[in-house]
Amino acid sequence: MIDELNGLYFEDLSVGLRGVFARTITETDIVQFSGVSGDNSPVHLNEEYAKKTRFKTRIAHGALCGAYISACMATRMPGPGCIYVRQTLKFLAPVHIHDTVIVRVEVTALDDKRKFATLVTRCFVKQHLVVDGEAVLLMPTRT
Amino acid sequence: MIDELNGLYFEDLSVGLRGVFARTITETDIVQFSGVSGDNSPVHLNEEYAKKTRFKTRIAHGALCGAYISACMATRMPGPGCIYVRQTLKFLAPVHIHDTVIVRVEVTALDDKRKFATLVTRCFVKQHLVVDGEAVLLMPTRT
Amino acid sequence: MIDELNGLYFEDLSVGLRGVFARTITETDIVQFSGVSGDNSPVHLNEEYAKKTRFKTRIAHGALCGAYISACMATRMPGPGCIYVRQTLKFLAPVHIHDTVIVRVEVTALDDKRKFATLVTRCFVKQHLVVDGEAVLLMPTRT
Amino acid sequence: MIDELNGLYFEDLSVGLRGVFARTITETDIVQFSGVSGDNSPVHLNEEYAKKTRFKTRIAHGALCGAYISACMATRMPGPGCIYVRQTLKFLAPVHIHDTVIVRVEVTALDDKRKFATLVTRCFVKQHLVVDGEAVLLMPTRT
Repeated sequence: MIDELNGLYFEDLSVGLRGVFARTITETDIVQFSGVSGDNSPVHLNEEYAKKTRFKTRIAHGALCGAYISACMATRMPGPGCIYVRQTLKFLAPVHIHDTVIVRVEVTALDDKRKFATLVTRCFVKQHLVVDGEAVLLMPTRT
Repeated sequence: MIDELNGLYFEDLSVGLRGVFARTITETDIVQFSGVSGDNSPVHLNEEYAKKTRFKTRIAHGALCGAYISACMATRMPGPGCIYVRQTLKFLAPVHIHDTVIVRVEVTALDDKRKFATLVTRCFVKQHLVVDGEAVLLMPTRT
Repeated sequence: MIDELNGLYFEDLSVGLRGVFARTITETDIVQFSGVSGDNSPVHLNEEYAKKTRFKTRIAHGALCGAYISACMATRMPGPGCIYVRQTLKFLAPVHIHDTVIVRVEVTALDDKRKFATLVTRCFVKQHLVVDGEAVLLMPTRT
Repeated sequence: MIDELNGLYFEDLSVGLRGVFARTITETDIVQFSGVSGDNSPVHLNEEYAKKTRFKTRIAHGALCGAYISACMATRMPGPGCIYVRQTLKFLAPVHIHDTVIVRVEVTALDDKRKFATLVTRCFVKQHLVVDGEAVLLMPTRT
């Protein structure tokens, strides 16, 4: 079962390989993410409070974009079998209800000794970069 | 409403200030996090697959620990009102169903010009460090 | 549609009329109730914390029993159409995961002028009374 | 772990101490509360039915406001560690999707012998009182 469910192996990767994952943020996603994370900050759940902030309305959790990045790598490219080693996230702009978040990841380096893959991991809304960052994954090998 | 719902302001912070948030990971949390993130990798949702991996059983999403870190800062210390600027995460050990994840955050630096607070952000299971990292927050000011 | 979906009307009630609703509390119910209510107190979600309390393990939210009482009246007896006026709740014993909560309600008084029905509302686990209380409902009338 | 996760103790309370918790009701919250409570009355879930009632549209569950009151006490003031003894709820006006419910609680009496705290517990939408009531909590003590 491992083989047929796994995604790419270290041997399959090359610098420049890309993956994409995208999802429209709904009010439901924000409510559910608040529940599962415990982050029920009013900027996510309280429209009257959020209206008075610089954001003017409720915004999505930054960590939800982090979760989408992990979904992109774990289910699209490279896919199941990789192990999360490191992630950096820079939150550049807020994400709102009804925004469609497009995650784009791309292999930027491969460490043959440790079987590590480095990927740039970015979230876009329309053409705007909203989250920038980098991930390191430990890849499974065929041998 | 802003003032009475907000947590600490930049002026309230000092190096060494700490916050804690803790939660026992349940099977429900992993199922719900898979749904809301889209990360339905078999290592989280497929016990037969997971049994054959190095983990021997399903593990929690690394990004769920990231979400708990954000919950700790957004709801405990410094609390509502801070804006997420940056986060780094190093995943050191897997987290399993029934593990109680304790998030500990501590202010390590304050940038008076930009009103940035830097915090070390760590997740523990029992005494073991499972996620290490650092966050930067833009703090609200009283003036 | 009102008529075919509604339950009993004021004219249908008499003192002594009873209703019952029962449900086994699962870990999922507690996790979901925490999310939807925002009550993520460690006594509900943190097994290591809960172990050190007088309860020795995580307990269900008292307000979840309150929600079951409302479900009993709104869906069983008297059923849809009644309007919630008042509720008192006395929490007599904790409710744990795997406990089956049985809600029993019984009409104790009818106020013909205001069309109010008073019901005793009780939750049991096995034979033990765990929540006692009283509700007042404004009933729809046939005329 | 008890001490660092607990909120206020009996010794920390004084008459007049206040807490606040607020959240915007979304359609998702009503759907999820119906699921977890079992209260799937058409006044909450059936827009065509609800349109023909005095409410003219779907309303939130009264017990959801009860749950928010419990969240306010369990997570804000006095915070984790208190035990729910009693709650009364008077439902004065309906709460709708998009309403922001503000829970305000305030200590009104302290029973030194039994370590009971009495709080007035109120829910507001804009400036309107929609739920009035009172809670009694058994408080933890430092000694």
